Amino acid sequence: MTARGETSAGFGPAGNPEQAWMRHPTSSPPAATALDADRLARVALTWIAEPGNRSVFRLVEQHGAVGALTLLREGGAPEEALRQTVTARLSAADPLAVAAEAMERANRLGARLVTPADDEWPLPVADLHRLVLASSPRRVDRETAPPLCLWVRGGHSLAETLDRSVALVGARAATGYGIHVGTELAYGLAERGWTIVSGGAFGIDAAAHRGALTAGGLTVSVLACGLDRPYPMGNAALFERIADTGLLVSEWIPGADPLRPRFLIRNRVIAAATRGSVLVEAAARSGATQTMHRALAIARPAMVVPGPVTSTMSVGAHELLRQYPDARLVTSPAQVLEEVGRIGGDLAPLVRGPAQVRDQLDDESTMVLEALPRRGVRGVDDIAARSGVMARTALRKLALLEELGLVSRRGDGYALSPPPREPLTS
Amino acid sequence: MTARGETSAGFGPAGNPEQAWMRHPTSSPPAATALDADRLARVALTWIAEPGNRSVFRLVEQHGAVGALTLLREGGAPEEALRQTVTARLSAADPLAVAAEAMERANRLGARLVTPADDEWPLPVADLHRLVLASSPRRVDRETAPPLCLWVRGGHSLAETLDRSVALVGARAATGYGIHVGTELAYGLAERGWTIVSGGAFGIDAAAHRGALTAGGLTVSVLACGLDRPYPMGNAALFERIADTGLLVSEWIPGADPLRPRFLIRNRVIAAATRGSVLVEAAARSGATQTMHRALAIARPAMVVPGPVTSTMSVGAHELLRQYPDARLVTSPAQVLEEVGRIGGDLAPLVRGPAQVRDQLDDESTMVLEALPRRGVRGVDDIAARSGVMARTALRKLALLEELGLVSRRGDGYALSPPPREPLTS
Repeated sequence: MTARGETSAGFGPAGNPEQAWMRHPTSSPPAATALDADRLARVALTWIAEPGNRSVFRLVEQHGAVGALTLLREGGAPEEALRQTVTARLSAADPLAVAAEAMERANRLGARLVTPADDEWPLPVADLHRLVLASSPRRVDRETAPPLCLWVRGGHSLAETLDRSVALVGARAATGYGIHVGTELAYGLAERGWTIVSGGAFGIDAAAHRGALTAGGLTVSVLACGLDRPYPMGNAALFERIADTGLLVSEWIPGADPLRPRFLIRNRVIAAATRGSVLVEAAARSGATQTMHRALAIARPAMVVPGPVTSTMSVGAHELLRQYPDARLVTSPAQVLEEVGRIGGDLAPLVRGPAQVRDQLDDESTMVLEALPRRGVRGVDDIAARSGVMARTALRKLALLEELGLVSRRGDGYALSPPPREPLTS
Repeated sequence: MTARGETSAGFGPAGNPEQAWMRHPTSSPPAATALDADRLARVALTWIAEPGNRSVFRLVEQHGAVGALTLLREGGAPEEALRQTVTARLSAADPLAVAAEAMERANRLGARLVTPADDEWPLPVADLHRLVLASSPRRVDRETAPPLCLWVRGGHSLAETLDRSVALVGARAATGYGIHVGTELAYGLAERGWTIVSGGAFGIDAAAHRGALTAGGLTVSVLACGLDRPYPMGNAALFERIADTGLLVSEWIPGADPLRPRFLIRNRVIAAATRGSVLVEAAARSGATQTMHRALAIARPAMVVPGPVTSTMSVGAHELLRQYPDARLVTSPAQVLEEVGRIGGDLAPLVRGPAQVRDQLDDESTMVLEALPRRGVRGVDDIAARSGVMARTALRKLALLEELGLVSRRGDGYALSPPPREPLTS
């Protein structure tokens, strides 16, 4: 467990790579092909404004990444807020130099840059163009565009790993119940070949990653900071295990700080890169519920695990289910797969109580059975009168019930066979 | 706790009043006015076929209760199943004699008969004409018509008591969680002047009645047997308390046995007599979920309290929420009142986390705040570059943050004010 304060050495002038680049820009990027130039420009654009900026994304669509960068450097940002941000960043460093340095650092780290030009680019993130968060006035919620590029660490293809994936997110201050359910869900889904995607936080996120790892499955942690400074540090060993067998992913250049607004920006990638998102425990206001809002906004299945109404850590989960008709209550891996599985794939069985012979009976047989005394013997005419059927019907049904082992003949009448059954009383 | 077997003495020839009437019918009913005749006929019809029988109800609509009874006695039942039932019962006793005897027994018991002709008849039960249970092939599910009459014990007007009422039902084998939540919900609703209606069973039903009684509120127990033999016997003391301060209600004549199919027939009255039904805990197949099906089928609010997905006693509750889009998740009395309250009445407040000053900040202020080091001091230019705003904007926002007590000026720069806050990490 490492609180953020303990890592603050990394934020100081000496240790912070973002800061280092600002003060010591390298002279110029290395010679580059057109593709390399596109990649460098994407990194530079992600640094010059926060990832997901809608204006920047539109510029890239119109002019390409290199053209968009040139335009922004020349003061051509289409809106004042973006212009201010760009000016502030340009005053600190040359964005292409920052990008080139980031490439080098990633290389040393064993990480790679993935862009839409790469085979392993996860196409579903393009659905973020549909992400409109009408409810929120905060600036970070305008950072909703698809990513321009992703840093990846780990040996698998990003696209293939995410092809059959489910996001599993929830509270940091999870309860034992939440940890248990989160771990079991992740284990069950990973066991069936599904990748578990989460954010690497304490609590449910970590439980989700661990559940998948325990099942020997794939798990992906999408970070809100550079891949070389995974946050929280208390999960450092977990991140190493994930990098070894799964993938670490981030939109931010190596060395980037886990600033608060970045978690919300990151959450849209978790929602968009997966086939659906599952929430396990969330307090009334939480980042995890924001991930669910993003999933709902791009029409991905948004699944919620309920909990005790006496638990504050389930308040956010229940509120989601109350507010959003599209949010789906789930209680098991099978029910999650019912939402995200391919057509004809794994479907959840309808939950049924233990099948009892008496549940299979026709109505008259039930009435006849109920007319028998709890103890002792009753005559056929008496049984017929009590059950409201004709005597011959009663006899026929009693024969059937005898065959099923529910009653037995005794002298002139019938008796219930042991064990006696409780009536259904409510 | 009394198992059904222990009360079986009451089922024997000596102790069972239904049986006694069959063997010793009184000679004839007392002289009666037209209204008395209607009342006696309704009781007789409820005995000659189970309450809620659709065919019988239609006959009463067409011919009146007296006419319907005459028709049935003359073999004029419109369908074979009903004809058999009537024939079997007629062979046992004179239905009018049974009815007269029932009136006398009720009188001795301090109970009264309530029919649609009475001021205290609860009009909403008429909505049962809409009750169609398409899914169920069982005969008991054809017993879905409105009641012909109701036996009532207790000092309040039935209609007034049910005017602002909520049904609260659930598992007999409830967990500590369910008992706690059921009691608290009932207490909270009763405290706000709402009547709690339930079925008197062990578990959630009893918790609901007790919660209302503890709040000094009204509670109504709708039984599936005669009012003189409340079932289960283990709740006998509870039933006496309910009769003293609230109401005991049944469709069945005094002495009637709590036969299994009667619980499902009874459940439709609980659903229809109230403004909405709340389910707290139910196993995969349970009578309580059947009550909810009935509430849904007549468009009454059907509310469900979720629970831990690790609990088998919440499986039925979660299945209801999954299967019925109209079923509503509730977690508090206020949320129940939101569903059943009169327009403009008690509405549930939106659940929110603790309001924090930093949640109120505009976007730029948030970015500036995040650019401050966790420990130590940082210069304004540095803060501006990191937060992506112009230096003059940073200065303006830092002044605002200082005023809010979030940062403090230190020499040439700014520092975070204690206590340090954790970033939102998921």
